Amino acid sequence: MNKVNASICTIGDEILIGQIVDTNSSMISRALGEIGVRTSQMVSLADNRKEIIEILSNQLKNNEIVISTGGLGPTKDDITKDALAELSGSHSYIKNEAQEAIVHDILHARGLDVLDINLRQAMVPDSCEVILNHRGTAPIMVFRFPASKFGHPAALYAMPGVPFETEAALGDVINNIKEHFKLDGIYHKTIMTYGLAESALSELIAPWEDALPSDVHLAYLPNPLTGVRLRLSVYGADGNAENRVNELFEALKPLLGDNLYSDADDTLEAVLGRLLRAKGESLSVAESCTGGEIAHLITTVPGSSDYFLGSVTSYSPEIKKKVLGVDAGTIEEKGIVSSEVAAEMAEGVRRLTGSTYSLSTTGWADSYGDEHEPAGTVWVGVSGPRGTETRRFRYKGDRKRNIERFAASAIDFLRRYIIK
Amino acid sequence: MNKVNASICTIGDEILIGQIVDTNSSMISRALGEIGVRTSQMVSLADNRKEIIEILSNQLKNNEIVISTGGLGPTKDDITKDALAELSGSHSYIKNEAQEAIVHDILHARGLDVLDINLRQAMVPDSCEVILNHRGTAPIMVFRFPASKFGHPAALYAMPGVPFETEAALGDVINNIKEHFKLDGIYHKTIMTYGLAESALSELIAPWEDALPSDVHLAYLPNPLTGVRLRLSVYGADGNAENRVNELFEALKPLLGDNLYSDADDTLEAVLGRLLRAKGESLSVAESCTGGEIAHLITTVPGSSDYFLGSVTSYSPEIKKKVLGVDAGTIEEKGIVSSEVAAEMAEGVRRLTGSTYSLSTTGWADSYGDEHEPAGTVWVGVSGPRGTETRRFRYKGDRKRNIERFAASAIDFLRRYIIK
Repeated sequence: MNKVNASICTIGDEILIGQIVDTNSSMISRALGEIGVRTSQMVSLADNRKEIIEILSNQLKNNEIVISTGGLGPTKDDITKDALAELSGSHSYIKNEAQEAIVHDILHARGLDVLDINLRQAMVPDSCEVILNHRGTAPIMVFRFPASKFGHPAALYAMPGVPFETEAALGDVINNIKEHFKLDGIYHKTIMTYGLAESALSELIAPWEDALPSDVHLAYLPNPLTGVRLRLSVYGADGNAENRVNELFEALKPLLGDNLYSDADDTLEAVLGRLLRAKGESLSVAESCTGGEIAHLITTVPGSSDYFLGSVTSYSPEIKKKVLGVDAGTIEEKGIVSSEVAAEMAEGVRRLTGSTYSLSTTGWADSYGDEHEPAGTVWVGVSGPRGTETRRFRYKGDRKRNIERFAASAIDFLRRYIIK
Repeated sequence: MNKVNASICTIGDEILIGQIVDTNSSMISRALGEIGVRTSQMVSLADNRKEIIEILSNQLKNNEIVISTGGLGPTKDDITKDALAELSGSHSYIKNEAQEAIVHDILHARGLDVLDINLRQAMVPDSCEVILNHRGTAPIMVFRFPASKFGHPAALYAMPGVPFETEAALGDVINNIKEHFKLDGIYHKTIMTYGLAESALSELIAPWEDALPSDVHLAYLPNPLTGVRLRLSVYGADGNAENRVNELFEALKPLLGDNLYSDADDTLEAVLGRLLRAKGESLSVAESCTGGEIAHLITTVPGSSDYFLGSVTSYSPEIKKKVLGVDAGTIEEKGIVSSEVAAEMAEGVRRLTGSTYSLSTTGWADSYGDEHEPAGTVWVGVSGPRGTETRRFRYKGDRKRNIERFAASAIDFLRRYIIK
């Protein structure tokens, strides 16, 4: 079996000056990974002909597949097509009739005249094959190089850079790669955990990790909102890889305990949503320091209106008392950031909305703090059929980061309450 | 004067497999651009020692400055530090006491034990200078190379890869670059607009733009949450650049009108916060389709508790009626997404909280829609001392993008109401 490697090259000044974030590279490498092609390198370059030729040649030397995006616009600063003609030794351009028809269609649909500059988009070096771009004017150009050129057979796919167009054409490019290259099998499994830092997780599962077979690779992917994601990959996978990985996963499960929340690429709020939906139960939220972030996360899940009734963000103590019914004496005695206030907030919003469960936060996201609790502290409350529980979390980030961690910890706390 | 070039190298399997999008590179290249350093190349690499050394050496050959991020975690797959030791010819590690103290602080704040694996983070090759990382355990390592090594004096800054840590340390790295390299003068001014698409804005200010002096460069930087940012840059700036740019800005102001909301790098919610604070006024919010995003944006502004009283996210019609007092007949007659419901929500939350102003949203963020309004529609309501006003906005994005645009449009609508 072959080990096929790819490089990605995104071309355009707007990436290099930091005006836009390159999202094409990750989209492409994910798609390549799915078919067992390993991305060895990603490069972003300016619209500079000499540099484009130099870097692409180098990538073709080291990889069987190179995918470039961008630099194919109609304006003068886009010089990728000329660079590719030179790299592939082409001296003439030919018209691609099918792409020219698409150019006409797109401009007509936008109510624009078809100018010469637009028609030039359908002209390609005679050294390439074309994959049509149905969402834009520049076609995908495929250049194939014999082994004599770079030491091994290689192909260069030049794609448009607008993510909307790149995304639409990517399926055709992937299919073309599958037709032309003999690919290794690959199998990935993603395991989502929350509640343990990367180092603690690593210590916890060290005996299991050390015993992994040599063809199984483990990656730790930490994220403040989703916890530490573990990814198990088998390169050169055969039909048995899925079973083998699942056996490894079964051995890992007891080590992870409740810290494990999904064995797929998932978010805490999506998992919580599925738990609620499965039981036909509902949720309401009372936020203070998280200021709407929990409600925002929960409602990013499509269909969340089936179980999420609503939330109250009570930034002022008056709203906590008036809307949520928190006792003034509790605030005075225990402090606004306290287990007792978190409990009364959760109970208050559950009473107000009639939801099955409710979740509350009260904390100091940044430099305030008081005599009861320092900055970076949040008290989380959960109320539900089994009563009310609270827990304190402490983090040491800036305001934005603390709000994110508070929200994720709160959602995870509710998840643990529900599954207990 | 010198033209200084930089390359950026992000290291980590998680980028190459497409699991995360590399946002560090654009953040770093923007910061470099601010001080007149041009980014010539961005590369993303896997955790592979040989490749890391090869690519970084190549970048150091072609650039005076190389900034790497990532690969510095405590787990076994992070091998960048060893690669850098080899590249710089170091054979021993030394402990950085200040960073070790930070490691202790961070772990204690999180209530975690300090393990050997954590303390190793504070060990660095003896060939580097250290810039402290106050937000994470891995310090920034600065390796300086004499001209004899790469043909010119060069410096390599190895930063942590977690964006939260990279961002916090970037200021210190930029200052270090300013100290050690002779840089061209540069002056930037940022002008924030909301309410006009890039093309409409470009048409509106064309006469002004066409008359710009040749050394003044204008960039359009559109963003769904902040509108179109205009950036005026003078490269090779002398002491007079600021005055010249300010004169150009004064001539631009009348063209932009109320679409202009700040002449600094700013957000709509920060500007809104300053307006409220200046007058000692307060705000409450009633959200439906935006699901907490507006409250979240408003509370990302430090000190927002001075003017933000709270919000109600009424995802279910029952909460709209019960908590906000929206009339059941209005919902039935006009539809849940209507000017009338937006108005009653705004008035209801203002009554509930006693705030000076209130803001409301009701809309269809994704594919639902009803017989009254299609998907992508939001009705925004504002209530305040001058009465209640509503406005409809329509966008054509996916759920996430629509929620972002709805929230930004709503905040901008309130801003215009207040300054009118």
